[in-house]
Amino acid sequence: MTATNNGDWLATNDPSRRSWVESANAPDTDFSIQNLPFGVFSDAANPTPRVGVAIGDAIVDLSVLAREGLLQQDASLFEQPSLNAFIATGRAQWRALRVRLSGLLEANSAALRDNTALRKRVLIMQKEAQLHLPVHIPGYTDFYSSREHATNVGSMFRDPKSALLPNWLEIPIGYNGRASSVVVSGTPVYRPNGQIKLPDSERPIFGACRKLDIELEMGFVIGKKSTLGDAIPCEDAEAHIFGMVLLNDWSARDIQQWEYVPLGPFNSKGFATTISPWIVTIDALEPFRCARPEQSPQPLPYLRHAGDHTFDIKLEVDLCAAGADEVQTISRTNFRYMYWTMAQQLAHHTSGGCNVRVGDLMGSGTISGPTPDSCGSLLESTWNGQRPLQLPSGQTRTFIQDGDELVLRGWCQGDGYRVGFGACAGKVLPARETA
Amino acid sequence: MTATNNGDWLATNDPSRRSWVESANAPDTDFSIQNLPFGVFSDAANPTPRVGVAIGDAIVDLSVLAREGLLQQDASLFEQPSLNAFIATGRAQWRALRVRLSGLLEANSAALRDNTALRKRVLIMQKEAQLHLPVHIPGYTDFYSSREHATNVGSMFRDPKSALLPNWLEIPIGYNGRASSVVVSGTPVYRPNGQIKLPDSERPIFGACRKLDIELEMGFVIGKKSTLGDAIPCEDAEAHIFGMVLLNDWSARDIQQWEYVPLGPFNSKGFATTISPWIVTIDALEPFRCARPEQSPQPLPYLRHAGDHTFDIKLEVDLCAAGADEVQTISRTNFRYMYWTMAQQLAHHTSGGCNVRVGDLMGSGTISGPTPDSCGSLLESTWNGQRPLQLPSGQTRTFIQDGDELVLRGWCQGDGYRVGFGACAGKVLPARETA
Repeated sequence: MTATNNGDWLATNDPSRRSWVESANAPDTDFSIQNLPFGVFSDAANPTPRVGVAIGDAIVDLSVLAREGLLQQDASLFEQPSLNAFIATGRAQWRALRVRLSGLLEANSAALRDNTALRKRVLIMQKEAQLHLPVHIPGYTDFYSSREHATNVGSMFRDPKSALLPNWLEIPIGYNGRASSVVVSGTPVYRPNGQIKLPDSERPIFGACRKLDIELEMGFVIGKKSTLGDAIPCEDAEAHIFGMVLLNDWSARDIQQWEYVPLGPFNSKGFATTISPWIVTIDALEPFRCARPEQSPQPLPYLRHAGDHTFDIKLEVDLCAAGADEVQTISRTNFRYMYWTMAQQLAHHTSGGCNVRVGDLMGSGTISGPTPDSCGSLLESTWNGQRPLQLPSGQTRTFIQDGDELVLRGWCQGDGYRVGFGACAGKVLPARETA
Repeated sequence: MTATNNGDWLATNDPSRRSWVESANAPDTDFSIQNLPFGVFSDAANPTPRVGVAIGDAIVDLSVLAREGLLQQDASLFEQPSLNAFIATGRAQWRALRVRLSGLLEANSAALRDNTALRKRVLIMQKEAQLHLPVHIPGYTDFYSSREHATNVGSMFRDPKSALLPNWLEIPIGYNGRASSVVVSGTPVYRPNGQIKLPDSERPIFGACRKLDIELEMGFVIGKKSTLGDAIPCEDAEAHIFGMVLLNDWSARDIQQWEYVPLGPFNSKGFATTISPWIVTIDALEPFRCARPEQSPQPLPYLRHAGDHTFDIKLEVDLCAAGADEVQTISRTNFRYMYWTMAQQLAHHTSGGCNVRVGDLMGSGTISGPTPDSCGSLLESTWNGQRPLQLPSGQTRTFIQDGDELVLRGWCQGDGYRVGFGACAGKVLPARETA
């Protein structure tokens, strides 16, 4: 990038910037002009999924903008059911488009603001749009990088005094997840059936999960592929990241408990993973960059990087309990609590030569904080069901009941504005009948 | 299918059928006219990857056959860098094409045999062709379904008397693998770097794997997708399988040992998985169908199926040791030893609602037999390095050395002919330098 371009780019994060899209200026909207996250949408007028950018309560249809010659990119990049083609054009293009869109949407910019006919075709109301999975995901990896979460789980199922396994402070532990069942926010989730081993019976049963749980996570999307055999150095890793989403790693705790030794979770996770529809770019997150927790022992050299490599992202989980007209926030935490950074996760993932591809999704692992109300799973907040949550309606919850809707939310808090992720929601449907 | 088509189809497996492609009639060729496996190839004259079928020492270029109007399918199905588009057309099409190709290649069929000009364009010699990964793989799952293998590993690292974990006889244990690093036979494999915890040091080191191993497996390729939320019944599962390949699940034992608790193998497997280039269809394997080992306890109802659901496939591993002009067969086993069938694996995989997609690859797990010379890994045959293999040249091997080439072979033995898989080969290159 030239110095001029870089200056343009920094201006997109200026907290004083306002948009002529009035709803983008509300202090509590996720989609301020400082955000400009990317997604894929369709609407009744045009049911073909295509690429858009959220602004306030609207979506900018990039395919229309490009066809009208208002963008430097070819419209075919945005007439796509996924962001992969655009992402593959590289970081300079992402940034140039961000600068252009910020300029077009800025309060004093007349080109689109004053062209009523064009504006009507370009701006679609979010409430009238359907949002789709924003990327085709060639591979999905899930990490386990919250020290508090790993400590809680270790205390619950092993010994509180040696809760962390010996490898945990050395390795950003991760495993391969199932990409086929990653769905976009709003997709209903069937309670899974599976093998469950009850303590009082000799053999397992096959039936509906009785301990259905969420895992509050964030995911990052790979923006630049690597070559098989090549490791991505930790210092270069962030350049391979396009952006971030919220991620709910739905988990069937009873199925997991019986299946996971020795090869890890499988059917207990593979039935569904929900992500939020808008990918917030690293450029938009830049003002919220912060330091990670101190790492001791110092990581091995291939996991070291200088500077700040995480972000201050406030996170919440809302429970909309079945049969109750109420929403309760059951967790409040922050992405900055994560012990291992995204750069360290990616450096580790590729350290043996494993290649990554554009659109690959990497989950952070459950994000739990230091306090009891900051747990990222019901397993932790109810201590495996021993301490039920009390809901205002008088109901209680240990694990998720049929008809419950779980909603993850996340945002960076600026001075008078937010850079937010929207909702990552899923309602649980009763299990399918078994044979 | 009509009764007539079914009759046609059964004739493709007739052991007495011979081809005018003389090399296909050799008793030890993998690619008899009874086989007709599918792959993707290119050659110097036409470097564009396209779909072909192996016959003797040649490849039938299906894109040319279709363009010439000799097939009922459109040529665009075969002018593809993967088989996915053709596979997605469904089982009736696979079978109809098999019938057509068997007819065209049969000894008394003149249409292609006697058209010298066309024959020259349609038949490419395998030695002049480059073979590519035959399918785009949306998801890769690896199972752990050999009782002998699981018992060997359990005896080695736990207690020989309780070698099998409690869940093993109930669940076809599997885990998600890394699809991005699945490569076709012949691709060199870098020895991976990774974290290794030596017994005499407090902290791990990062360096080249010292216990590089193979896992002799077979893989099956999904031919029919399923829908998220739907379980595939065990009785229907085989209808979702297009065919089978050989699979080498390269494994870094020292990296695996340190990383795998509690979420399973990750970097110890993700650096490379090699498959053979030709997919042998279930129709071609039909004459070699046989019973699986007895299962006790009887599996839970969702894992039950009547009839025979495995295949008699002879398997061998050859070691071409670095610096020695010799090939030694270091293992001889059979796919029929596997405890869990492919149908049971697929029924289990989808039992919680996880969806599968066309091209998904499912590895069997290491295939070990009942005798010491039938182990599917060096870990087992050398008992974790304690009993080195003696090679004819005087060299010994515990694990793989740089420059060694490992070749998996497999075939069904008919009366005077074979239905074989070709080679699944990979040569090990020295580890990349670490930072």
